[in-house]
Amino acid sequence: MSTLPFLVAVDWGTSSFRLWLMSADGTVLAEHRSHEGMSEVAASGFETVLESHLSALSVPEQIPVVICGMAGSRQGWVEAGYLDTPADIATIGENATLVPGTAREIIIVPGLAVRSLNEPDVMRGEETQLLGAYFDMPDGARYCMPGTHSKWVTMEGSVVTGFETFMTGELFSAVTGKTIVAYSTGGEGPVDARDPAFASGVRDGWTRPELTTHHLFSIRAGQLLHDTRQEENRARLSGLLIGAELAGAGLRGDEEIGLVASGALQRLYHAALSECGAQIRDIDADVAVQRGLMEAWRSHSAKTGDRKRA
Amino acid sequence: MSTLPFLVAVDWGTSSFRLWLMSADGTVLAEHRSHEGMSEVAASGFETVLESHLSALSVPEQIPVVICGMAGSRQGWVEAGYLDTPADIATIGENATLVPGTAREIIIVPGLAVRSLNEPDVMRGEETQLLGAYFDMPDGARYCMPGTHSKWVTMEGSVVTGFETFMTGELFSAVTGKTIVAYSTGGEGPVDARDPAFASGVRDGWTRPELTTHHLFSIRAGQLLHDTRQEENRARLSGLLIGAELAGAGLRGDEEIGLVASGALQRLYHAALSECGAQIRDIDADVAVQRGLMEAWRSHSAKTGDRKRA
Repeated sequence: MSTLPFLVAVDWGTSSFRLWLMSADGTVLAEHRSHEGMSEVAASGFETVLESHLSALSVPEQIPVVICGMAGSRQGWVEAGYLDTPADIATIGENATLVPGTAREIIIVPGLAVRSLNEPDVMRGEETQLLGAYFDMPDGARYCMPGTHSKWVTMEGSVVTGFETFMTGELFSAVTGKTIVAYSTGGEGPVDARDPAFASGVRDGWTRPELTTHHLFSIRAGQLLHDTRQEENRARLSGLLIGAELAGAGLRGDEEIGLVASGALQRLYHAALSECGAQIRDIDADVAVQRGLMEAWRSHSAKTGDRKRA
Repeated sequence: MSTLPFLVAVDWGTSSFRLWLMSADGTVLAEHRSHEGMSEVAASGFETVLESHLSALSVPEQIPVVICGMAGSRQGWVEAGYLDTPADIATIGENATLVPGTAREIIIVPGLAVRSLNEPDVMRGEETQLLGAYFDMPDGARYCMPGTHSKWVTMEGSVVTGFETFMTGELFSAVTGKTIVAYSTGGEGPVDARDPAFASGVRDGWTRPELTTHHLFSIRAGQLLHDTRQEENRARLSGLLIGAELAGAGLRGDEEIGLVASGALQRLYHAALSECGAQIRDIDADVAVQRGLMEAWRSHSAKTGDRKRA
């Protein structure tokens, strides 16, 4: 196990910043997490925020940085473009964008885009998790990547042939924050994946997704008429939205799904996928993104090396 | 046409107050509208608000008032209870609740409740519109009543056998106000029912309701990738949510539907129902609620008269 710093890997999302100092064999030597997501950091502030973390860890200037996530969007640090599907994620490193004018070498990997006219779609950050997850399921797979904007991805080998985003997490926040259902779901406590109301919500959402907006109102009516508990109502709401996502993704009951997730979302989606009979391969999202960033760096430097040799 | 004041009819909702001074033959002698909905008026203030409108219209104290809507909820003026389905709406007047301690006779009609354990539901206000609409379709019908919380109602004669609420209007507000889609849908301008993006949204929502939360995100992706216009995006969003509501309500392509609506919502739902092939009976929501309040008053006074004679 090496302890020499080799690479700084950063997943820089809309609302979170995660940085890992890694050795050449992939060992995580140090980790920093903060809420300095893209929406907190003004365009000019990205380098300041990054260097403050690097100086706290005394990372020498010759150690490069590879970044994925919304920092590469138009509203981010430097726009890193998209690879269009079908897209070989093994190429995200060689298609990364160099951040200009910094002392240190810093690259941002591109996102992926479905450039269809009817159902366009985009991702930023998940492509890097997929590159890390790919080694676990190299023959191709369907992946479920839960989040504010959940992604369902089909891969053949290392090629993403298509994906679909579902606004499940953001709708949960909007419904519990800003609608009449908020009166029935209460505060911000976590949903218990073992709550029977979660499982019944998943079943109803999966089998009757067209009734989702009716079922949401029914949560409020249930509280008025049957005095249902807030925890139960939150669990049912979460189950309904996740179940409808599984229906929208066209999940088949016995399908093998790579679940790329961690923490509370991993528990909820694992329970939901089980409820619907899926065969689940659990893939830790943090490990996947670390591995993906390392792989992206390697293919980037291989290309740069080729160019230098040429 | 009588010009003698006979009854004050009030539809008092969460966010709006509408009052009509009516003669015995149903002629509207005067109308007041304001934003003094239930959520603006503290419990103690209902009588003050009502009497200020009545005094502006010089309505004599012997003229009674009949109220429907959220003013009869637990958070309203006086809780007016619910009739459980199957419920004969011809009886809402005789089941109205007298507001205690006022100089004038003021009654509030009950709402309706579906007391199912799995899919409980409630309405307040629409039962009165239904009583007014019933005279146009006395043999029974399915009604679509669009709004913040759209209602789909099945009636046999004057009996409501069941109904379902869909949170369509409130979700439109939540999504355009509080999610990433807001960046793509812009301000608060009305949606044009003739926009082709509205019609295509209706079709996609109706035929693939399970993809609704995917289609919502796709609006954002479309703006990023294809630079779609905000008006077009708002129209598509509105169409998607209304189309999914029609799917959830199980609309059959050639079904006759009583559309109880007015204004902009009437135009949108009429266009959406047409797009899906429904046979539409347009029923003006304002006329329906005025007529329903008058009928409720008549059956209330008939009962009171019976009691006095007994």
